[in-house]
Amino acid sequence: MTAIRIGLLGAGVVGSQVLRLLQTQAAELTSRVGAPLEVVAVAVRNPEKYPDIDPAILTTDSAAMVAREDVDVVVEVMGGIDPAKDLLLTALERGASVVTANKALLADHGPLLYAAADASGADLYFEAAVAGAIPIIRPIRESLSGDRISRVMGIVNGTTNFILSAMDATGESYDKALKEATRLGYAEADPTADVEGYDAAAKAAILASLAFHTRVSAADVYREGISAVSAEQIAAANEIGCKIKLLAICERFIGEDGAESVSARVHPVMLPATHPLAKVDGAYNAVYIEAEAAGELMFYGPGAGGSPTASAVLGDLVTVARNKVVGGRGPRESADAQLAIESIDAVPTRYYISMDVLDRVGVLAQVATCFAEQGVSISTVRQQGHSDDATLVVVTHGAPESALAATVGRLDALDAVRKVTSVMRVTGDER
Amino acid sequence: MTAIRIGLLGAGVVGSQVLRLLQTQAAELTSRVGAPLEVVAVAVRNPEKYPDIDPAILTTDSAAMVAREDVDVVVEVMGGIDPAKDLLLTALERGASVVTANKALLADHGPLLYAAADASGADLYFEAAVAGAIPIIRPIRESLSGDRISRVMGIVNGTTNFILSAMDATGESYDKALKEATRLGYAEADPTADVEGYDAAAKAAILASLAFHTRVSAADVYREGISAVSAEQIAAANEIGCKIKLLAICERFIGEDGAESVSARVHPVMLPATHPLAKVDGAYNAVYIEAEAAGELMFYGPGAGGSPTASAVLGDLVTVARNKVVGGRGPRESADAQLAIESIDAVPTRYYISMDVLDRVGVLAQVATCFAEQGVSISTVRQQGHSDDATLVVVTHGAPESALAATVGRLDALDAVRKVTSVMRVTGDER
Repeated sequence: MTAIRIGLLGAGVVGSQVLRLLQTQAAELTSRVGAPLEVVAVAVRNPEKYPDIDPAILTTDSAAMVAREDVDVVVEVMGGIDPAKDLLLTALERGASVVTANKALLADHGPLLYAAADASGADLYFEAAVAGAIPIIRPIRESLSGDRISRVMGIVNGTTNFILSAMDATGESYDKALKEATRLGYAEADPTADVEGYDAAAKAAILASLAFHTRVSAADVYREGISAVSAEQIAAANEIGCKIKLLAICERFIGEDGAESVSARVHPVMLPATHPLAKVDGAYNAVYIEAEAAGELMFYGPGAGGSPTASAVLGDLVTVARNKVVGGRGPRESADAQLAIESIDAVPTRYYISMDVLDRVGVLAQVATCFAEQGVSISTVRQQGHSDDATLVVVTHGAPESALAATVGRLDALDAVRKVTSVMRVTGDER
Repeated sequence: MTAIRIGLLGAGVVGSQVLRLLQTQAAELTSRVGAPLEVVAVAVRNPEKYPDIDPAILTTDSAAMVAREDVDVVVEVMGGIDPAKDLLLTALERGASVVTANKALLADHGPLLYAAADASGADLYFEAAVAGAIPIIRPIRESLSGDRISRVMGIVNGTTNFILSAMDATGESYDKALKEATRLGYAEADPTADVEGYDAAAKAAILASLAFHTRVSAADVYREGISAVSAEQIAAANEIGCKIKLLAICERFIGEDGAESVSARVHPVMLPATHPLAKVDGAYNAVYIEAEAAGELMFYGPGAGGSPTASAVLGDLVTVARNKVVGGRGPRESADAQLAIESIDAVPTRYYISMDVLDRVGVLAQVATCFAEQGVSISTVRQQGHSDDATLVVVTHGAPESALAATVGRLDALDAVRKVTSVMRVTGDER
């Protein structure tokens, strides 16, 4: 049996676990693949940082490594767009299969990588790019390939879910919860990519592309993070039986003329506490899928961490290595639907709006008129307090985002409304 | 593009949905497979029952159909061991790939089918055999193939979960809940296969085989159904913060000498209400997996029904058809570990035991001695009531099943114990 020869890009938190699993499970993996898996090169920036790795396979020349004709599979766990993009293109172009955990690269340049893989007949696998150890790419790409997915909603960022769960459990502020997350290692020193939703947006782009057979890049994803979520909003959500979660939402719409379109977006939402996703706490991830034939599915598990991510990488590695042994290859890019991508303005959402109002006759009528004029239908209204601190809480039915945003602007300009204090999207059974 | 030619065995609840999806999604499927999928024959017993199917492709001669050299893929949704076994062997032996939803056949004769597939290089796929639309076979067989699974626990039978959920919600008896399930179509006229755990046991055998790379057949699975679960037990479970679920439990054990063994069993358990599986209600299925690197994963969705099951069949069909087009094949049988299968007697479990006792000094000491003599350690004891209706509720720590069973026997024989009224296994964080 000729060994399948692996080149590893990166030996950090994930890469070191990939090496460990390859070593401790060598015999099992050989049996599953039909040939031994041999790591012939590990490309890193500072070899002296890796005393446990055989110096003979350590290299700083990643470009030379991916070009080596004797490397059958390149495993990329270094992250970032450059130089990962050029390295993987080089590998794919010469026919090496690629296993990558690089969500940003796939979200921005997926079609380019697919095209290179296609030209040479190589495999491109990326289970670890979304939701860590949770098998979600393969189920969407393969298990559900005979079905029609209408919606994907995911908690795909563990940092933000940890922070929101902590705020919910303790009532503390965003800043305090972020500090605690940083102290415990759930948030990075610069948490921007996580808390502002960039990480989740890249994953939303990948999920939407696969689910809807349509190219969706990170730039197509509407994005809001959680840094503006307040303790008061968390409390208000609980009052109406909801939890606030940062969701990646990918939806398929069917217009009145039958034309289909899709949307991908990341923002905080109020979700009924009874929804399966509302019960996912801490750093866990979960992805909820609605498909026409399959119905409602949910996948749950650890969304990050060296060892869980390495498990996903290894699963892909076994498949692409086995394909090298027996011939054949995995699924190619599936983008034949190429549905139009809706701007956020046109997407139907629901709003929770809380506002401080003057306690005088006719306020509710004025407020209701504001909604009506924008064609926004009201689901519930609740009035709290009296005189100086009267509060009105409105939850709308579904309406185009632009109409809702316009309504908020109009409300803010009303004399009777002292201040719109909180606006949050609501997701539930009603679209 | 030469079409991939499909022969369908059975056109009932699932088969008719398979035909519908093949028709309504013909264009998408062609694009994903790389060739059109064409149903060239549908074998049924009574053709007159299927006025919607083109008579030209309807046949009663299933043996001739599977032998047809121009049938590339056989899809089996007829169920039962005979004649399905011989039909699928014929198909596989001549190199046709097989997609089947037949859990009983796989649990009893999986290795035979794998061997036939292997000899001809055909694919054998069976996502629909366990947990309906939930992608679980592919995640275990492929996504987790680079990991080591230590435990699989599943709610894999919708009928029994519907009944137990109804008993929990209403407090009604098993008989009443079964009647309601039958009326609503969740239970068959003869519910034995479901309520006595035979269906779940077949699925447990399949899950254990895949998870542990070890041949486990239905006969290796210890099995108890739910027909003896009483309303009182459901109430008692709630009192200690638990739910009663019928679980398929597959575990890997590591002995003191490092030797590994496995167990597969189906029985009702008390599960902490906080466990993700405890929250799965109604006819839904869910499978919970613990893997060494991945950690805890859960998969949730509809476990039965024509359309969800057809979704799983179609996903497999796309894969095996694509393999026919591009060459290559899916995973083969993986049974290289061949771990010993523990008898239920040796499996460590925990018991909940409730007993009516005499209200006199020294009863607790006598009872505690019974446990100690069998080497069973007690976790909690609760005493309720006085004089004539004093009740003692004991929850044990983990101990071999045989020691627990022996303890119950000894308790029953004690003068101070009027009657052991309820025994139920408990599952939780402690093994």
